[in-house]
Amino acid sequence: MIVELINTGSELMLGRVLNTHQQWLCRQLADLGYVVTRQVAVSDTGSEIEQAVREALARADLVITTGGLGPTSDDLTRDLVAQLLGKQLREDAAVLAHISHFFESRRRAVPERTKVQALVPDRATVLHNPHGTAPGLAMEVRPNPFRADGKPSWLIMLPGPPRELRPMFTDSVAPLLQRVLPLASGFVCRTLRTTGIGESVAQEKIGGPLQRWVEAGLDLGYCARPGQVDVRLAAHGGDAERQVREAETIVRELLGPYIYGVEDEDLEAVIVRLLTERKATLALAESCTGGCIANRVTNVPGASAVLLAGMVTYSNAAKQKLLGVHAETLDRHGAVSKPVAREMAEGARQQTQADYALSVTGIAGPSGGTPGKPVGTVFIGLAEPSGTLVELQFNPYDRETFKQVTTQQALELLRRTIL
Amino acid sequence: MIVELINTGSELMLGRVLNTHQQWLCRQLADLGYVVTRQVAVSDTGSEIEQAVREALARADLVITTGGLGPTSDDLTRDLVAQLLGKQLREDAAVLAHISHFFESRRRAVPERTKVQALVPDRATVLHNPHGTAPGLAMEVRPNPFRADGKPSWLIMLPGPPRELRPMFTDSVAPLLQRVLPLASGFVCRTLRTTGIGESVAQEKIGGPLQRWVEAGLDLGYCARPGQVDVRLAAHGGDAERQVREAETIVRELLGPYIYGVEDEDLEAVIVRLLTERKATLALAESCTGGCIANRVTNVPGASAVLLAGMVTYSNAAKQKLLGVHAETLDRHGAVSKPVAREMAEGARQQTQADYALSVTGIAGPSGGTPGKPVGTVFIGLAEPSGTLVELQFNPYDRETFKQVTTQQALELLRRTIL
Repeated sequence: MIVELINTGSELMLGRVLNTHQQWLCRQLADLGYVVTRQVAVSDTGSEIEQAVREALARADLVITTGGLGPTSDDLTRDLVAQLLGKQLREDAAVLAHISHFFESRRRAVPERTKVQALVPDRATVLHNPHGTAPGLAMEVRPNPFRADGKPSWLIMLPGPPRELRPMFTDSVAPLLQRVLPLASGFVCRTLRTTGIGESVAQEKIGGPLQRWVEAGLDLGYCARPGQVDVRLAAHGGDAERQVREAETIVRELLGPYIYGVEDEDLEAVIVRLLTERKATLALAESCTGGCIANRVTNVPGASAVLLAGMVTYSNAAKQKLLGVHAETLDRHGAVSKPVAREMAEGARQQTQADYALSVTGIAGPSGGTPGKPVGTVFIGLAEPSGTLVELQFNPYDRETFKQVTTQQALELLRRTIL
Repeated sequence: MIVELINTGSELMLGRVLNTHQQWLCRQLADLGYVVTRQVAVSDTGSEIEQAVREALARADLVITTGGLGPTSDDLTRDLVAQLLGKQLREDAAVLAHISHFFESRRRAVPERTKVQALVPDRATVLHNPHGTAPGLAMEVRPNPFRADGKPSWLIMLPGPPRELRPMFTDSVAPLLQRVLPLASGFVCRTLRTTGIGESVAQEKIGGPLQRWVEAGLDLGYCARPGQVDVRLAAHGGDAERQVREAETIVRELLGPYIYGVEDEDLEAVIVRLLTERKATLALAESCTGGCIANRVTNVPGASAVLLAGMVTYSNAAKQKLLGVHAETLDRHGAVSKPVAREMAEGARQQTQADYALSVTGIAGPSGGTPGKPVGTVFIGLAEPSGTLVELQFNPYDRETFKQVTTQQALELLRRTIL
């Protein structure tokens, strides 16, 4: 199966935005068993888009495009594809009604220009867009005049904004692919998510023991992100399920305590789930992470059942006033210290009557480090019913990576405590 | 000038890593006036890489590849290109000495396999790699057998690791390009960042008035993200600077109040800059945004000079205890109401003695909505020296987009107030 991805957008070619579609779509497709063979990005220029689509249709069984379906003058994909395939555009009543409803429910007038998004090529399947106004479009190119052997291709056009594209892929495209382009043989993919262990150490632990599964066809992959390493196990063929299951058992034996979840589950979602199951509540006292833990936890639907409050106490005055940290402790040990982390966690727990309270105080950088406490130094505290513990970590990264890694360590400390 | 970029790596096609080379190189090249026409990613497979290089050489004046120059079995680019162009590989004594020195200075033995990196195609220019062992390679393909008109192309091969590629581009590739492929004319690009206005409304306002500049060659582009629309103005030629300057004047006249920054500046960075200039301080009281405003503000280096504290008051008890919201106000109006937003902002200002305090209370969803206050309803309060204002907004999006758009509206309310 040959799969090609075309990303359109002048902002990509000018390097103004990062192409997150490539990774996200390649990842989703690979996990379904459709590995992308080639990805192309071109600007919002008619001739460039046309050439890219034409070339892809000449080679691939499946072509996915992103972008160019919106209402503005640089949104050309819909028109160009219709023209290239000799299809008329017709106004789709359901899409038009959706666009009107979309604006009316937001109490805004429908801009005339947005109605162009209701035009769809003849016989195309409309992919509903609950998060925006531009629908996705899917069509089988049959006969396929671009391919030497005339073999048909599927062409799927998705809108550019990630919050529209992602649910559309999951809800509409994945089921469509499994129906119209079923894979010849079984495909099983399993991702185990770990934290607190590096990529090379993970590989040292499991690489050898999994060698004979790899030789038998298991695809073993690692994906490292700040504070997280995913281990991916995939196999094709009739025996795929058994292979992946056995490999998972070995990985769990060797990496067990580091594995916090599977597939796409984030650590914050695990925390909300565990606390909800235990009917326990949480409070947060953040200094250098600046609300990043609170933000991650509140990204999880249902967080309000467990999170009572978070305090971002950047200043010493706020640490004293909101958390009851003693002036004397701050004077004697400094704001970035074990005793202050302890008092912050205990203060947050007491103030809110939560069962658990996490605290973080450290030096995110780029400035503020000293020889004794360099940039990256951070203390993580956890006050819980049976006492308080404080961990010292060292995360000498750029500011945003520091926040990501530190919040991961704090959430993991909580996870291991409540498990 | 036709410029193409080829990124090689199976991990890209499986979606295991983000292709940061695309943005970084496209950006660097665009700022030098070389706009990338097409970017292609393929796996580390000989036939895929060869086809991509062959096709690019058939079209482009400049082809840049990334990856495939290392010592392992999946590093194929160097050998494939030499073969494709019919060039012998010769061992470069200087590169070999560099590799030996690289390992010796780290007190490690030179792995036999790394010496393959000293092989360079005949007559290629070697680009020194102070941060690794694989040199970059540059060569003029002249005559060019792949191009119908035989026009020569430049082919530049860069190593994959970003910390090797980036300094090599800046130190070696940029000067080389300016020498061997000088631009016939100038290139100017300007991005204006707006918030509070939709993409189609922005276009309705500026599309017509800019029409004659577009006809004269101005490249006008839009890039929409949650709560933000970027307007990009670019032009080539001797008159580029004047064209872009005049277009910017028109855009500023028509969209003035919506423009919060230029180029890569984020709204939170503008806020930290403005507050720092005014020696003013800020406090935050967040309910439904759950620390997202605090997290964004503290992503900005120097935020500690302006942000005194943030309170994430998810529960009613926390709103009362930490912010002094009255039980009676909560009972009478509900937590999502104008009076509660007002008391939250005023409470945060009073508690922290900050000059400004922002508050947010609303329903992020997916559950919790009522007919009178559907999911997406949000009140944003701002307490400032001369009084308190509260804005009602309606953001019926998924949870994370809701947070992004709402924090953007809150920061924008503050920006317009302190301007």
